[in-house]
Amino acid sequence: MTRATATEAGAEKEKEEEKVGEKGKGEPSALRFRLVAVLKCSADLNEDAVAELRKFVSACNEGLLKRGAPAGCGAEIVSFKVLNGNIELEIHSDRFVRAHDALLRFRKNLAPILGKYRIGLRGIEVKKYEIEMESQGLKLKTLPFVKSISYSDGNIVISLDLTESDLERRIPDRILRLLEEKKEAARWGGKKEHWELLFESRRKEFFFNKDPTEEMLRRGWIRHGSARGQWIYGPQVTRLFRAFEKILLEEVCYPLGYVEMIFPKVVSWDVWKRSGHARAIYPEAYYVCVPKTRDPEFWEDIADYFKVTGEIPTEKIMERIENIGGLCYAQCPPFWVFLQRRVLADECLPICIFDRSGTSHRYESGGIHGIERVDEFHRVELVFIGTKEQVIEHAQRLRERYRIVFDKILDIEWREAWVTPWFMAQEGRAGVASQKEVGTIDFEGFLPYNGKWLEFQNVSINGDKYPKSFGVKLQSGRELWSGCSGVGLERWTAVFLAQKGLDPENWPDAFKKFVGELPEEVFKFV
Amino acid sequence: MTRATATEAGAEKEKEEEKVGEKGKGEPSALRFRLVAVLKCSADLNEDAVAELRKFVSACNEGLLKRGAPAGCGAEIVSFKVLNGNIELEIHSDRFVRAHDALLRFRKNLAPILGKYRIGLRGIEVKKYEIEMESQGLKLKTLPFVKSISYSDGNIVISLDLTESDLERRIPDRILRLLEEKKEAARWGGKKEHWELLFESRRKEFFFNKDPTEEMLRRGWIRHGSARGQWIYGPQVTRLFRAFEKILLEEVCYPLGYVEMIFPKVVSWDVWKRSGHARAIYPEAYYVCVPKTRDPEFWEDIADYFKVTGEIPTEKIMERIENIGGLCYAQCPPFWVFLQRRVLADECLPICIFDRSGTSHRYESGGIHGIERVDEFHRVELVFIGTKEQVIEHAQRLRERYRIVFDKILDIEWREAWVTPWFMAQEGRAGVASQKEVGTIDFEGFLPYNGKWLEFQNVSINGDKYPKSFGVKLQSGRELWSGCSGVGLERWTAVFLAQKGLDPENWPDAFKKFVGELPEEVFKFV
Repeated sequence: MTRATATEAGAEKEKEEEKVGEKGKGEPSALRFRLVAVLKCSADLNEDAVAELRKFVSACNEGLLKRGAPAGCGAEIVSFKVLNGNIELEIHSDRFVRAHDALLRFRKNLAPILGKYRIGLRGIEVKKYEIEMESQGLKLKTLPFVKSISYSDGNIVISLDLTESDLERRIPDRILRLLEEKKEAARWGGKKEHWELLFESRRKEFFFNKDPTEEMLRRGWIRHGSARGQWIYGPQVTRLFRAFEKILLEEVCYPLGYVEMIFPKVVSWDVWKRSGHARAIYPEAYYVCVPKTRDPEFWEDIADYFKVTGEIPTEKIMERIENIGGLCYAQCPPFWVFLQRRVLADECLPICIFDRSGTSHRYESGGIHGIERVDEFHRVELVFIGTKEQVIEHAQRLRERYRIVFDKILDIEWREAWVTPWFMAQEGRAGVASQKEVGTIDFEGFLPYNGKWLEFQNVSINGDKYPKSFGVKLQSGRELWSGCSGVGLERWTAVFLAQKGLDPENWPDAFKKFVGELPEEVFKFV
Repeated sequence: MTRATATEAGAEKEKEEEKVGEKGKGEPSALRFRLVAVLKCSADLNEDAVAELRKFVSACNEGLLKRGAPAGCGAEIVSFKVLNGNIELEIHSDRFVRAHDALLRFRKNLAPILGKYRIGLRGIEVKKYEIEMESQGLKLKTLPFVKSISYSDGNIVISLDLTESDLERRIPDRILRLLEEKKEAARWGGKKEHWELLFESRRKEFFFNKDPTEEMLRRGWIRHGSARGQWIYGPQVTRLFRAFEKILLEEVCYPLGYVEMIFPKVVSWDVWKRSGHARAIYPEAYYVCVPKTRDPEFWEDIADYFKVTGEIPTEKIMERIENIGGLCYAQCPPFWVFLQRRVLADECLPICIFDRSGTSHRYESGGIHGIERVDEFHRVELVFIGTKEQVIEHAQRLRERYRIVFDKILDIEWREAWVTPWFMAQEGRAGVASQKEVGTIDFEGFLPYNGKWLEFQNVSINGDKYPKSFGVKLQSGRELWSGCSGVGLERWTAVFLAQKGLDPENWPDAFKKFVGELPEEVFKFV
């Protein structure tokens, strides 16, 4: 089975990633933390208290700050002083008991001791927080919370500006995770998507060797919209879109038990935080902003400026709106809010739903493109939810239905490839998923006019990612999985027309049954 | 005929507006302009040149600056001086030859005179530009190009900061138009929409007296989306939406010869400048912004910040995106780009097209609403284009088809009213159109649970507004008109369910034929 090959390759890739991690763990000396903090007390410490503190510090260095670490490893309070009711500590550590964890452990255990002297702990001021590590080719310009970055002897020293609450939120741990990610990205040398052929259709007869977008423009079927990467679709091509949609519904969705829903099209940051898009979507997002207030007076001078000059003061507008998220990019994430923090009865599985209620938007790279690469596009999104077994089986059935459509109705030449899961790609991650069954199959169609293959849809098994991120559980406690399949109407059209041309006489009979007669010339220009 | 009543009322309103204008024109003293400008010359004027200039100024005050004005009116150069090759003028005027027009006339005729002395005109510096007018209750905080605003003796004095090019662009005229508009708005006391009953259906039987949104929430048919004013529609209500859409297509669109198109959903400012939305849309728009660059490095620190804190730095994002327009508000404006600057053959008229390809968005006032007042909604938009007679006749036929739908299929209680044309309302204007055939008919349905009427769709005749704004012409040279009709699926659903309830047994048989069996419980929550 082609699928087996794909998942084996996936498993191998995974081992490579693990090794990278192991290597890091085997070199504790590669990571050092240096923390200077002041614990603010509610009163001066008397001599007895200071003496007891001294004993406690020694005890910590022997036990508390080493707990859980291999012999010879852990954290150490290298110095401390007491002044005006403040306790200033310097802690050095390796990766095993990180300096901030050591400080929080120390504080927790110090409190009852000071309590005996009726002294309370008021708060922590972090005077210095340094991380030193091997740079391993990492070149950093900036980092969140960074004070300074310096390099010496193949090492990088990062000084952070942190508060007590930052330590409690484990910000240093998150920064370390980010640094690991950046090192990995540097090693990969940019993102390389996994790609592996699973299936290739037999050769088909082509009736066209031109760019269908050019031909549609020539015939007046489409015209550029006023915004970037946007088309206005005339009656003929809209009829094609609807025929494709009908095929999808009647030959794929309904036979497999899908029902229609309507998913939101403005996506809040809360959704993209959960879906992982907040990790990487920024250069490609269409951002949505709302007015800071609906008060007409707040906007009067903007309207006046337009009325007087005929121009829009977009710079001024930017000061009066706020960003709440963006436009539909992947189509299924905002659906999951429907199930968020809910428990599903096992008996209603598998759930199969689809949405075709609006546009998707991506800020694509510039230049003029055909309808196959646009900023505003139309997609039908299928989502399937069930147990692991159900989802894996359903994806297989879905592929079978699609094959019938492409082979018997559209009669196109296409292939299928096992690729980096779409949600990983959209989070800026390369490679394949850690679970071998999780991943994306891209469907690619051949474009005779340029000899390239165009991805026109996918089928994905997303594992437990979405149920987990949105807190959706199964009554039985079994693992809940999901998958999805996005069908781009522009892309189907681009592939079909590139192979069959614009003249219905060359279209397969099975397809003509769905499309019917194309609308006559509705607009006649002179 | 009810329509006749409506248009007569429209005509009457129009006369009232005209009178306002006439009153203004009858009082020339109410408007004064004072302009001080320096004409920069390429060289000093010798004595001969100054003498000739003096003669020319006198001549201007006798003739050129009075031309076209009633006797005793016009502009006057009240003083001038020549210094270091510069000619400084002070011009006073009334409304008939406005000071900036006087200055431009003066410059044009001065050029050949100075030419005789080999002196060229280099440019104009505007040192002062004042408009004085009766305040008539106008209270201005600011204005475009304003330096200061002061009030005295019932008059308002506006001092403007203008350049030569501002004078050439007739900015003062545009500011005056804006002031007239503001006075009118003040007289109206805010926007009052015209509303006049045209038709009322017979009383119908109601099967429900609750808020259908509450009931849908209780049954799990809908759930709030993650963004503001947004619902996720489950299988049952989506089936209702699609049944309404099918009724609309089969009973209204197809019998009247409509064909489907796909209109863009991101609307650029260029479209809204032409449609007039740029005059007033600001407090209610959903704004769309794009990245200033797609370079991933430009966005790396934003992604890093999220990865470390789990929060989105929206303030920082605002600095890196730019506003290009907004989301679909009215649905037809971006379609007109398809015809922009084109000439249509008469024989293809009337053109009837519709779009149902995506969502519309309005920033509605806060608070929790049912599905009848939302920020994100679904609408089918019908557009009809033809000669004036064709468009008027078509609107009538459209109304007839709708009546059959509401009476025979949905069996609802509704009424029709002649209202402020939607495009005027959306430009912040009240009243009715200047042409009596131009306007909007709102269809309102009764909501038994709160005793109110809800506007659920409209039919509008937009006159030549859109063809004119987008430069669309007819081969014969005849006037091209258009109309549109927006059908809100949320609104149809809200009215139908409010009157008939959620149980299909109480739904009319004719409707049940379209909706079929509602989907069984797809999601079962525990």
